[in-house]
Amino acid sequence: MEKILELAKRRGIFWPSYEIYGGVAGLYDIGPIGSRIMNKIIQLWKKIFIQENSDFVVEIETPMITPQKVFEASGHLEKFTDPIVECNKCHRVYRADHLVEQILKINAEGMSTQELTNIIKDKNIKCPTCGGDLGDVRNFNLLFSTNIGPYSGTTGFLRPETAQGMFTAFKRVYETSRQKLPLGIAQIGRVARNEISPRQGLLRMREFSIMEIEFFIDPEDTNVPIDKYADMKLNILPADLKIKGEKPISIKIDEAIAEKIVLNPWMAYWMATANKFVKELGIQEDKIYFEDKLPNERAHYSSQTFDQIIILGEDKVEISGHAYRGDYDLSRHSKYSGQDLSVFKKYDKPKIVKKKIIILNKDKLNSEGKEFNKELMKKISGLSPEEVEKILHEKILGKEISEFVTIGEREEKEQGKKFFPHVVEPSFGVERCLYISIYNAYREKKDRVILSLPKAIAPYEVAVFPLLEKEELINKAKEIYDLLKDKFDTIYDDSGSIGKRYARADEIGIPYAITVDQQTIEDNSVTIRDRDTWNQIRVNEKELISSLDKLFRGEKVQQ
Amino acid sequence: MEKILELAKRRGIFWPSYEIYGGVAGLYDIGPIGSRIMNKIIQLWKKIFIQENSDFVVEIETPMITPQKVFEASGHLEKFTDPIVECNKCHRVYRADHLVEQILKINAEGMSTQELTNIIKDKNIKCPTCGGDLGDVRNFNLLFSTNIGPYSGTTGFLRPETAQGMFTAFKRVYETSRQKLPLGIAQIGRVARNEISPRQGLLRMREFSIMEIEFFIDPEDTNVPIDKYADMKLNILPADLKIKGEKPISIKIDEAIAEKIVLNPWMAYWMATANKFVKELGIQEDKIYFEDKLPNERAHYSSQTFDQIIILGEDKVEISGHAYRGDYDLSRHSKYSGQDLSVFKKYDKPKIVKKKIIILNKDKLNSEGKEFNKELMKKISGLSPEEVEKILHEKILGKEISEFVTIGEREEKEQGKKFFPHVVEPSFGVERCLYISIYNAYREKKDRVILSLPKAIAPYEVAVFPLLEKEELINKAKEIYDLLKDKFDTIYDDSGSIGKRYARADEIGIPYAITVDQQTIEDNSVTIRDRDTWNQIRVNEKELISSLDKLFRGEKVQQ
Repeated sequence: MEKILELAKRRGIFWPSYEIYGGVAGLYDIGPIGSRIMNKIIQLWKKIFIQENSDFVVEIETPMITPQKVFEASGHLEKFTDPIVECNKCHRVYRADHLVEQILKINAEGMSTQELTNIIKDKNIKCPTCGGDLGDVRNFNLLFSTNIGPYSGTTGFLRPETAQGMFTAFKRVYETSRQKLPLGIAQIGRVARNEISPRQGLLRMREFSIMEIEFFIDPEDTNVPIDKYADMKLNILPADLKIKGEKPISIKIDEAIAEKIVLNPWMAYWMATANKFVKELGIQEDKIYFEDKLPNERAHYSSQTFDQIIILGEDKVEISGHAYRGDYDLSRHSKYSGQDLSVFKKYDKPKIVKKKIIILNKDKLNSEGKEFNKELMKKISGLSPEEVEKILHEKILGKEISEFVTIGEREEKEQGKKFFPHVVEPSFGVERCLYISIYNAYREKKDRVILSLPKAIAPYEVAVFPLLEKEELINKAKEIYDLLKDKFDTIYDDSGSIGKRYARADEIGIPYAITVDQQTIEDNSVTIRDRDTWNQIRVNEKELISSLDKLFRGEKVQQ
Repeated sequence: MEKILELAKRRGIFWPSYEIYGGVAGLYDIGPIGSRIMNKIIQLWKKIFIQENSDFVVEIETPMITPQKVFEASGHLEKFTDPIVECNKCHRVYRADHLVEQILKINAEGMSTQELTNIIKDKNIKCPTCGGDLGDVRNFNLLFSTNIGPYSGTTGFLRPETAQGMFTAFKRVYETSRQKLPLGIAQIGRVARNEISPRQGLLRMREFSIMEIEFFIDPEDTNVPIDKYADMKLNILPADLKIKGEKPISIKIDEAIAEKIVLNPWMAYWMATANKFVKELGIQEDKIYFEDKLPNERAHYSSQTFDQIIILGEDKVEISGHAYRGDYDLSRHSKYSGQDLSVFKKYDKPKIVKKKIIILNKDKLNSEGKEFNKELMKKISGLSPEEVEKILHEKILGKEISEFVTIGEREEKEQGKKFFPHVVEPSFGVERCLYISIYNAYREKKDRVILSLPKAIAPYEVAVFPLLEKEELINKAKEIYDLLKDKFDTIYDDSGSIGKRYARADEIGIPYAITVDQQTIEDNSVTIRDRDTWNQIRVNEKELISSLDKLFRGEKVQQ
């Protein structure tokens, strides 16, 4: 990790924000090279998650600033908290579960504040900085709060996920698009979480970007295109095996659904999509698995969650989360907003249902006086047939209601029903993808660093160098650069020795470097140097583009 | 404007955020169609501003959350304010300058709080809602504030522009890139401004996206590639003509620089680039001009600012700002951070400068005792030659210093000098670009709406429809859709009547609609319908892609 941070700073990939002011924990700048890699990761995600599913996924953008009511409805105001504990002496604040985990080497995820307080007292855990006594553990809300407008008391919060934007906009998106389920609403945007003491670089940030889809489904829908991934196997660690301390199993998607390891087929579809995406970031299949979260590890809205885990050396890092949110979100927002967010589902064929009806015996009623009729109407108006049935034996002006009213049955056609769509949510952290891709691509060779990024996410595809700082080589190299730059992401560089330029290209992960040398001037041939093998081949300028095309397709090129 | 808002809601372009909770003023969701247009506007901006200038412009991403110190240095904490006035009776708050402008029909931009208070008293302006008396005008800071971390008092703010991220990262970007000026640092990101009472839809939002470049230059640099825009004329309204109430003049870039209408040639370069970009959004040249801001209209850091104005019907709307920020930013951040943010400029040839030096008379010093030598050294050590020269006539142990020390001169070569780069800043609001593009493209034809967006920013390039909901037409249409979708941004739609589908395609600005009808089944021909003329031509399926390519190039297609 230290090595990655050093490389990232030195080569303009990322670094702590506001460095000149000493930095702010949990905030990072993404530099010129980092931005290029990140933009390509985002484009790749959009291709795999949105464009390949454009029949049913659309993209929107909603604000970070969110009024309080939304997080009351979502439950974040109450439940989006971390346990903290303060030192009574030096008043430093710690994340209580992490402190307990660090000192006792146990898993404290999901423990209540009371449990944590007890453990701290029982095990006599002290302030790691000054040795002072620690107070009681309490919950700290991770939402950043602010005030909207010039009036005090109009509290707003920065969203900790983009999801609520999709839920509050669901009705409008549903109505302005094809008005059918499934409907995926995707968003790529900034979120903020007021972490207690963020430390792990890009893995725990106070502000970062998320790529996520809220995928609205009919829970009865079985028409899920899992065929697309028929040949794919996923590594999954189900809850029961996890509890036993066992390893992930490798299983086909349809089997994972059939065996109820994954509760919803659409969830399995998006997990398979995530698997495809992460492999294209360069991660090997055997370093990826999906871990079932136990009930106390899940967010409050989730009925099943899988974390997609990447094995990075000794560490296990979450790259995405896959939550089955049920109808929690739309039903809560319906309740809190007073708006009906359910959808109407038309049956293929109308259903025949029997309905009770109220039958009045008109002849008998006509034979009674006005007074009786009035009293009877007062008694039964507004009641359902079922309610009337219960009072048939009551009396009005001495006569039993059943003499005048009976309950019959009628067959009715029901065209469909209203229901709250369920939600499946695949969610990726952008900076996590960036960090994991870089970590995974990091190699050392003869004391030099190579970033073996896949072509799809390399910051540049090709570098063009003149061998020496000679005008004729520089001019020729610039010609080659002009030739390539519309076809490939190309960078030109003539500063410093050729060795330094190769090293720099390797360190930022440029797959191929083209060098113009004296021989180029004589016979129009250039060298193509491979980042990973350092092998060079020489090709004619005329065949340069087709040679690069071949290399990027993984084919061999004849000299 | 009403019509645009209605269309935007109906077709999923944009709508007020959190609608189901009654909305929050100044916050908008960008819907599925709006996101597609917006993403294309951003891609177009990146192409014209970054990619075409990739030799000297890089992109970065920095956080929205910013520590207080940064805005102390930038001056925002003190000066990023709007004047507000509160009603003493109903306690509603108004933006004072806007209120004065609205009621007195005068320009109140840049008036002080005292001036505004006086005008409100003198002209007896009352609360427009309840008629109550208004209080004194005071400044309201538009930065959204929040608290970072679990400790109270660690205030942070949401950035109101992306610029400070580039200034605080300047040194790191400069050092990790080619270490030369000019250096442009671009960023596309969210910003937030706590507007008093935002009302104008996408034109005045509390949270929005910005595309801007902080372009760092050597102010003595005259090697500016304005040749690129040699044939372009800009419409400019210089300050002197503006004061006289005259109209913009049309002038070539090099003339605008020579006549000192634009103070810096790089500023002119970016204004020309902005002109090119805006024209590609579909805006006609005669609806674009650059307005010189008067000193009281400019931001506190700017020594010259042009607003790029678009004429939309009766209104004039700012689409971008072009500020010459001088060395304000880097010098302020150097001062506040204690870090040296200057750069070193190597002269082409070293300069010969004369420097004073201290000359010790060693023989005479040797003849004195240790005590004297020690006292003399104590006196002069750490002093510059200039400082020593001033004390030559002072005495040590009864002897004048000048007996032992003289000041000589030596010629030295100076290799270069240190200076703070100056900054030119072109800055666009993304949602403004979206709104202006849509407004500009809005047409009505026979009571129907057409959005005549340029192809480059249309949400889809092609729509594919089966004429009727017949299986054989649907299958064929899906075949055509599969044929086109990798080559063009294509949408397939078979819901509702063909007339409704054409209307929808026109309303969201899809340039061409392909229809599959009975004749397609017979002879493989399809119709291509033009959005703007409603003309249809019929071409064979085999020629469809080449025909569309021609149409997009503006060429004619033979049936």
